[in-house]
Amino acid sequence: MPQTEFYYFPIKALGEPIRLLLAYGGEDWKDNRVTPEDWPNFKPKTPFGQMPVMVVDGKQYAQSIPLSRYLGRKHGLAGSNIDEDFLIDQNVEFVNDIRAKAAQVQYEPDEALKAKKHEDFSKNVYPGMLAKLDQILKENNGHLALGKLTWGDFVFAGIYAYLKVMLQAPDLDERFPAFKKLEQTVYSLPKVKAYADAAPKTDH
Amino acid sequence: MPQTEFYYFPIKALGEPIRLLLAYGGEDWKDNRVTPEDWPNFKPKTPFGQMPVMVVDGKQYAQSIPLSRYLGRKHGLAGSNIDEDFLIDQNVEFVNDIRAKAAQVQYEPDEALKAKKHEDFSKNVYPGMLAKLDQILKENNGHLALGKLTWGDFVFAGIYAYLKVMLQAPDLDERFPAFKKLEQTVYSLPKVKAYADAAPKTDH
Repeated sequence: MPQTEFYYFPIKALGEPIRLLLAYGGEDWKDNRVTPEDWPNFKPKTPFGQMPVMVVDGKQYAQSIPLSRYLGRKHGLAGSNIDEDFLIDQNVEFVNDIRAKAAQVQYEPDEALKAKKHEDFSKNVYPGMLAKLDQILKENNGHLALGKLTWGDFVFAGIYAYLKVMLQAPDLDERFPAFKKLEQTVYSLPKVKAYADAAPKTDH
Repeated sequence: MPQTEFYYFPIKALGEPIRLLLAYGGEDWKDNRVTPEDWPNFKPKTPFGQMPVMVVDGKQYAQSIPLSRYLGRKHGLAGSNIDEDFLIDQNVEFVNDIRAKAAQVQYEPDEALKAKKHEDFSKNVYPGMLAKLDQILKENNGHLALGKLTWGDFVFAGIYAYLKVMLQAPDLDERFPAFKKLEQTVYSLPKVKAYADAAPKTDH
């Protein structure tokens, strides 16, 4: 029996950063992909009614970014002091701000309102945020923080495909080549590549 | 000149956890309260066009929760290993989930839609989340994590008044006495109390 059980929907989204980190760390883990049909049954058994959830020795761990930070620290992908850790946290939170903005559009049930919000954010919100993120990557040698590989890069790489869907921006690779490059940097790490090559294919 | 300059709107909200932590740590800091009139001028000078911002030795630090974690670690309010730190992070993120849900209502510009969302969340979202938070506090000796005072308690105490406004729940103290008690636990710490007694009074 694997030591670590991981549970998330059969997509990348907020689960993929953790999958990438478990793979990078060479952990003995099982990638349980919970279908939307099984989710209502599983939901009440999770700590917050949400996934991702990681289970180690019967203990449940939840929340995507805290899990990513935890695994990053465990596997040598954190800073070497609290100032460095802060810089990773700060820039991860900014990526999460972009995700949260786009999620407001993506999960708006009213189609007319969704279209209106997308138009508004595409004009007034996303351009500034994406340009800032691009600037951060350029100032950090293609990474999210500290000018080198950290767990923050795994968060970005894991959610990048999902971000493109939510931003409704299939041209994001071309507009910001540094984004695609960072995704590839992480997915090219040998153990991550081995996981990704064997994983079910999903578009986001 | 104080060593640390702190900038936020003249309310508690997302700035207050950091003020409480700066006070608790006995730091030499200045509490700059940026008015909505001055904000458009200051906004482009911030790292992400957002407050709170902390400036130390000319370096800017941004993002409310990362700042709280940083100051918590600096002042002995973190866990003693990555597992303990994870538990604080996880539960802080859950408090932030509640805040983010309520913010979707609070910052909805369309009044009719705002009322509809509030009704929906009050029926289908908030009760479960608040009961879960109450359970967490009960399992942790009145604290957010680890059964003792951590920086997570400062995040909760700092945003509690703001949360009540956004949840439109002036009766929250009565419904969940453990919430009010935790707020008071933090605000009763001598250095925090000294700060709060001297600070401008705001209702959230």
